[in-house]
Amino acid sequence: MTPDTTPAELEQALTDAAEAAAPLAASAPAERAGWIRAVADALDAAADELVPIGMRETSLPEARLRGEVARSSGQLRMFAEVLEEGSLLEVVIDTADPNAKPVPRPDLRRVLVPLGPVLVFAASNFPFAFSVCGGDTASALAAGCPVVVKAHPGHPELSVKTAEVMMEALRTAGAPAGTFGLIQGYDVGVNALKDPRITAAGFTGSVPAGKALHEIAVTRPEPIPFYGELGSLNPVFVTQAAIDARGKDIASGYVASYTLGVGQFCTKPGLLFLPAGHGLQEQLVEATGGVAAATMLNERIAEGFASGLDRLRKVDGLRVWSEGGGATLLQTTVPELLARSDEILEECFGPVSIVVEYASVDELVAGVEAFGGNLTATLHAEAEPDAELAARLLPLLTARAGRVLWNGWPTGVAVSWAQHHGGPFPSTVGSIHTSVGVTAARRFQRPVAYQDTPDAVLPAVLQDKNPAGISRRVNGTITTAEVSR
Amino acid sequence: MTPDTTPAELEQALTDAAEAAAPLAASAPAERAGWIRAVADALDAAADELVPIGMRETSLPEARLRGEVARSSGQLRMFAEVLEEGSLLEVVIDTADPNAKPVPRPDLRRVLVPLGPVLVFAASNFPFAFSVCGGDTASALAAGCPVVVKAHPGHPELSVKTAEVMMEALRTAGAPAGTFGLIQGYDVGVNALKDPRITAAGFTGSVPAGKALHEIAVTRPEPIPFYGELGSLNPVFVTQAAIDARGKDIASGYVASYTLGVGQFCTKPGLLFLPAGHGLQEQLVEATGGVAAATMLNERIAEGFASGLDRLRKVDGLRVWSEGGGATLLQTTVPELLARSDEILEECFGPVSIVVEYASVDELVAGVEAFGGNLTATLHAEAEPDAELAARLLPLLTARAGRVLWNGWPTGVAVSWAQHHGGPFPSTVGSIHTSVGVTAARRFQRPVAYQDTPDAVLPAVLQDKNPAGISRRVNGTITTAEVSR
Repeated sequence: MTPDTTPAELEQALTDAAEAAAPLAASAPAERAGWIRAVADALDAAADELVPIGMRETSLPEARLRGEVARSSGQLRMFAEVLEEGSLLEVVIDTADPNAKPVPRPDLRRVLVPLGPVLVFAASNFPFAFSVCGGDTASALAAGCPVVVKAHPGHPELSVKTAEVMMEALRTAGAPAGTFGLIQGYDVGVNALKDPRITAAGFTGSVPAGKALHEIAVTRPEPIPFYGELGSLNPVFVTQAAIDARGKDIASGYVASYTLGVGQFCTKPGLLFLPAGHGLQEQLVEATGGVAAATMLNERIAEGFASGLDRLRKVDGLRVWSEGGGATLLQTTVPELLARSDEILEECFGPVSIVVEYASVDELVAGVEAFGGNLTATLHAEAEPDAELAARLLPLLTARAGRVLWNGWPTGVAVSWAQHHGGPFPSTVGSIHTSVGVTAARRFQRPVAYQDTPDAVLPAVLQDKNPAGISRRVNGTITTAEVSR
Repeated sequence: MTPDTTPAELEQALTDAAEAAAPLAASAPAERAGWIRAVADALDAAADELVPIGMRETSLPEARLRGEVARSSGQLRMFAEVLEEGSLLEVVIDTADPNAKPVPRPDLRRVLVPLGPVLVFAASNFPFAFSVCGGDTASALAAGCPVVVKAHPGHPELSVKTAEVMMEALRTAGAPAGTFGLIQGYDVGVNALKDPRITAAGFTGSVPAGKALHEIAVTRPEPIPFYGELGSLNPVFVTQAAIDARGKDIASGYVASYTLGVGQFCTKPGLLFLPAGHGLQEQLVEATGGVAAATMLNERIAEGFASGLDRLRKVDGLRVWSEGGGATLLQTTVPELLARSDEILEECFGPVSIVVEYASVDELVAGVEAFGGNLTATLHAEAEPDAELAARLLPLLTARAGRVLWNGWPTGVAVSWAQHHGGPFPSTVGSIHTSVGVTAARRFQRPVAYQDTPDAVLPAVLQDKNPAGISRRVNGTITTAEVSR
């Protein structure tokens, strides 16, 4: 058990972060890209040391954790590339227009600047990709913000070792001292969140914890943005045509997805809507029964799962199809779901999912409409026969989710330009933001517009000559060219 | 006096807005652009009817209000153009990459979709540009959100007439019923803000009102984003070299700026930092004395200004340089300011400003550092002799403001791509967002990523053929071309 950060250590971490803010903000994007690449390289180089610690502390298998290290370092490199290309700064230049109506327009040059020190609450379920070296950290560093990570108690030694690797890499690469720090302890995290030196926070975890921290952040004397990823059910809706075409694949894909990583994914499909008479019960029960029991991330999560299962077993209208091995499969119908949606639509984190049978397309639509905000919503359909039905369902899914999948499974979140990992409340607080993908950095950047400022004193990225050749929007059009004024 | 909206009327307005959300979200961007242009045209056509009502209700002069109408209609047309060009949707497409490491990457297509019904709290000081037909409304409509405006009680008849013009234009152009609505009354606004059908809110007004409404919005059972523009001091810093080069112009520009519109601009320069021995006192006093008394926007604002002046007059270290006409000029020094910064750095809305004299560059820097968040910060300097000083001050101003001006005056906010009207708390809650300029729409949009979805069921803007030829980022590069997959 790692001891909590002491008040003196917390004070030092916050002071260091605050002092790093100005030099980080002043650093050239390419310089920052270099520091971030150094962290990525160091993580990859330390994988052999870090992964075994993670295996011991989280019970996750080696291949999964190695994949996570690669994902985390790849994510850092993606941000480095986009920093160099320049899009991350969203430079917009409108040159002066003395003839503009109703009044002449000055020269305006807008760039995104870092907010300042960012507090990251690490998650338990991805000890690399959503923890110390995860997406919140990577995007905040790319934005140019010092980062203080509040370690998750589920993998304390891994957190400390990962932080050491990162700090050493940053130091060697020449990043300002205080660019990165680690703190431990729940109350310590709350105190950091209340500190005026912290300018934004990212969080991945449970709905109650996320709501409590959100309220602290937004009701401080100086409110700060709080980006929380809370809970998500990730429903999957399957049409009759999809069952006819590939019912067996859907059944096996579903069980594999909801039991992946012992069901401990934010994107675990919590419900599968099937047409009545699907004929897949036997296969689903068999596949579920074949899932080997596995240790969950930690005691608290295992206890939460056990009590969540107990709760679900007692809900009227929910029937157990398979239990006792490494996963539990429940079953209900749309009318029963609608009658007890509050009880049935409460996330249970772990290897459990619910098959919901619908008797008509209207029931399927009613099932979709029963949902609030989710990270993902999935439709399994066949393009031709389901064209009309898909056109009806897609807008309903879009209104409820941040990512809409077609004939896939929500577990697994690609890191790319177009990715969006977020969604309407309660899947996140802050549905306009993503915690994965290039635009995740925007959470930690604010725009500044310079008016009529001479080239010589402007930040280099805003200067006429565009010395680094970055991508900028000039008078409405994206270009890497020089500006004349 | 216009009566408050009744509970039944509010219920109807919210129901109408909620029902308009889906058809608005489904509308093609070009279709929405047409509706928005129709509103712009109708406003221009109604100027002769609306402006006299505004003059009577706000005491603002005709030319100013006609300028505001043109600014508002121009702003609507800007959003219509950007909708057609496509950038407002921020379409990002990453085609599938089966060879991606560590795992194959699916086809992902990200687009910004509307949040849903938006509540706009209108401001008093810009009865067009930040009121019923102002920037919050324009940007939310552009985003595809139904808008419910809570009218400001300072110009009730103008609010009703403006809303009628807008609603008739939207109806005639074929926009969904419920696209726009108007409500009146403080408690009515609060009730609307608490209603689960409202998905975001914009506000321009005082710090206490903004903080109270912000807290309601973010602590609802389902928290929503609240974009509030609250208070700003907009300090102006003048170097010795600038005084030497054009002291008289600076003095006259300053008085004109802080008394513009009876000092009722959010961007009014509240403090002017001058080097001791500037020799401009006589000119500043004379110019201030020459400002004609004028009626303020309403009784409440006039009373607030009178009590604010009383308060300032009693602050130790603040001396009156000129008072009694249409404006009041106070004076202090940096050491006195630092000794009583809490009292001196409290916004007083109206035609008053404070000259702050500094005895050294270090005092000037200390003066800059005394400020928290502001909408604007201005430097008057001479490029050559002040190169070093400007390089020292610019980062400090950047850290404190959303717009940094060089040798200009902060009053007047151009509407363009590069504009940013926002800033660190307390100038706004939500410093990462702007209420003016193209990106203002982002406050009311959330991303959705479609994974592996067939072309035929995708929204047209995401389809391979790019039927409307909009601007999209494909595999990292901006293009208007077709996508092959």
